[in-house]
Amino acid sequence: MIRASIIGAGMTKFGTHADLTLSELFAAAALPALDDAGIGPDEVDALYFGNTSAAISENDTHLGPKAASQIGLAGVPTQRFEDACATSAMATKHAVAAIESGLHDVILVGGAERCTPASGLDTDEMTRVFASAASRQYEQPVGLTFPGVFALLTKRHMHEYGTTRDQLAEVAVKNHHHGSLNPRAQHGQKITREDVHDGPLIADPFHLYDCCPFSDGASAILVVSQDAAESFDSEAVDITGIGHASGGVPLAEQSAFTATQAARDAVGAAYDQSGRTADDVDFCEVHDCFTGAEVLATEALGLVEDGEGGPAAAAGRTALGGDIPVNPSGGLKAKGHPIGATGTAQIVELTEQLRDEAGDRQVESPSVGLAHNLGGEAATTVVTVVEARS
Amino acid sequence: MIRASIIGAGMTKFGTHADLTLSELFAAAALPALDDAGIGPDEVDALYFGNTSAAISENDTHLGPKAASQIGLAGVPTQRFEDACATSAMATKHAVAAIESGLHDVILVGGAERCTPASGLDTDEMTRVFASAASRQYEQPVGLTFPGVFALLTKRHMHEYGTTRDQLAEVAVKNHHHGSLNPRAQHGQKITREDVHDGPLIADPFHLYDCCPFSDGASAILVVSQDAAESFDSEAVDITGIGHASGGVPLAEQSAFTATQAARDAVGAAYDQSGRTADDVDFCEVHDCFTGAEVLATEALGLVEDGEGGPAAAAGRTALGGDIPVNPSGGLKAKGHPIGATGTAQIVELTEQLRDEAGDRQVESPSVGLAHNLGGEAATTVVTVVEARS
Repeated sequence: MIRASIIGAGMTKFGTHADLTLSELFAAAALPALDDAGIGPDEVDALYFGNTSAAISENDTHLGPKAASQIGLAGVPTQRFEDACATSAMATKHAVAAIESGLHDVILVGGAERCTPASGLDTDEMTRVFASAASRQYEQPVGLTFPGVFALLTKRHMHEYGTTRDQLAEVAVKNHHHGSLNPRAQHGQKITREDVHDGPLIADPFHLYDCCPFSDGASAILVVSQDAAESFDSEAVDITGIGHASGGVPLAEQSAFTATQAARDAVGAAYDQSGRTADDVDFCEVHDCFTGAEVLATEALGLVEDGEGGPAAAAGRTALGGDIPVNPSGGLKAKGHPIGATGTAQIVELTEQLRDEAGDRQVESPSVGLAHNLGGEAATTVVTVVEARS
Repeated sequence: MIRASIIGAGMTKFGTHADLTLSELFAAAALPALDDAGIGPDEVDALYFGNTSAAISENDTHLGPKAASQIGLAGVPTQRFEDACATSAMATKHAVAAIESGLHDVILVGGAERCTPASGLDTDEMTRVFASAASRQYEQPVGLTFPGVFALLTKRHMHEYGTTRDQLAEVAVKNHHHGSLNPRAQHGQKITREDVHDGPLIADPFHLYDCCPFSDGASAILVVSQDAAESFDSEAVDITGIGHASGGVPLAEQSAFTATQAARDAVGAAYDQSGRTADDVDFCEVHDCFTGAEVLATEALGLVEDGEGGPAAAAGRTALGGDIPVNPSGGLKAKGHPIGATGTAQIVELTEQLRDEAGDRQVESPSVGLAHNLGGEAATTVVTVVEARS
């Protein structure tokens, strides 16, 4: 079932963006998305905007009208979403529902975020900001930040399935290789398995290169109904499913650490809506905030059997040219992770890949792509299936 | 047109709530809402949650799964909304769209917020937090906080229409009188016009009693489809329209200070959807963050002619027993204003009034109620029309 269509996509390079307001940073993704669609602001009738951290880091909230005003959209209904790292996938979910219900016709969806010291906060302070997504009562007081959360999940996976540090390192090597092919990636340098092993320990089993960077950036897509897409000149792709589920907080309430059950529930819903199965997926962008998170995601999405995520990465199955390319953009790991912009940035990548516009990192003639965007202790997960028009 | 129905409503007393996590505070409104509907958490399939300030004040984000876990809803799709003071009306808007699109069947909608020193921040610090909704580039640096924003709008109204401080004071006296009839109001004490005039000056023309207080509290409603409402035992009321519009930020981008154009656009949409006009509205809850804001709202909603908001308040037309009772709950002014909880708290009041359950503050046999919830420099406005079942 085609739920909605995407007629334009844009994003900034991910990295450091100082000297811009957050609304200006968003404009640097939104205006290219409008250009890509070949439309002007007057044809947009709503803005669904995502940001997670500016409240704390920049004392900046109520960002919907601010972002709208910046790009000539003052007056249209606009709202801000915040669901930790799943923020702009959530904005997309609600935009698709709004298109289906007839509430709006042409919706600009996206996010902007600043996480580098350009935000005004240093790395220690921003780590505390990120930890705001963890349980205020049980996890923050004991110092559990997100490298620790995903280290716990990954250590358990190593225990249950024999996943190795070498296999985790291969995820990082692969995503940096993909990033080297993506001119918008924050970390375009190639790395080796040894580089990963030799990096500073962050949270066992993760060393520095197992972890995604702190990033600034913005992304935007234009969502319309399937029928409306016909009336625009740009090449449309179709959203055929969006699943969304949550899990318990604190982490201790989740019944199985390695299952990331919210991802399984979300992808099940997305597959049901789209009539697709994991076998139909030609490539995907998954939420590799840490190497271990990509391993868990490939299993939760049904792309490999449980326990096979590590071996699949080590065997090159998830690399460009493999049987199921994962994160051709470089992923959060190499492309970067400006939190509230990541969800729609994944969909920008799906759009470009499905249009065969991805240049050196192009997956061979894909027709079905999938994006997996999670928040917090994998306690929010949104999975989106996007397809090329046949 | 009936867009969705409300089968349960609950809220805490507004005031100070220490010694609870934010999720526990929400539970203190959500569980009574479930009880009111006569259902358990297993019958709820989504949570739409609003909060504005905990990111800054309590380092607490990603609140959807946290609030869901607290009340036995872990696993259901849940999301957090933040649109300044219009936060939980926005959650309601999206819940109604989700019901209409068939995305969910029974949605718990609400918000929780702590703004008193129980949040961990003192009044000066919380004033800075509230100001985060103003333009980061042009307004915050010059010290424009929200008493100043609404003082600017109100001074202009006094200039254009001759609105007087006595008229403004009557709004405060009325809402405190209404609050004295509401056991959940933060400020149940009656005041006189002299009390208003004699209070400390906050931002000319506003003295202390022209301003709503800082509050903690939570509110929740259960939203279902019109058809589904028939299968529950509780007395349902119907949402027949929700309009939403935005205005420019900074304030200087808005073409007319006294028009609050976003409110006019939002109420126009709400009236269109519901097939109602201002003449059909029996009572309303409006966003009286300051006395002047209530005057502007009654005009923007078409309840009185432009320029007549002050004289109407002074003549008692907007009091209980008048021809168009405004804020029978006491409004933000006396009931209190825990930011993210205010939007759904207004709808809790509409629900109780339309069911004839409002006790000493009951409007006489109302059939159509309206809620007006704004955010920031009136740059986000959501207007909801709720009706009794005939």
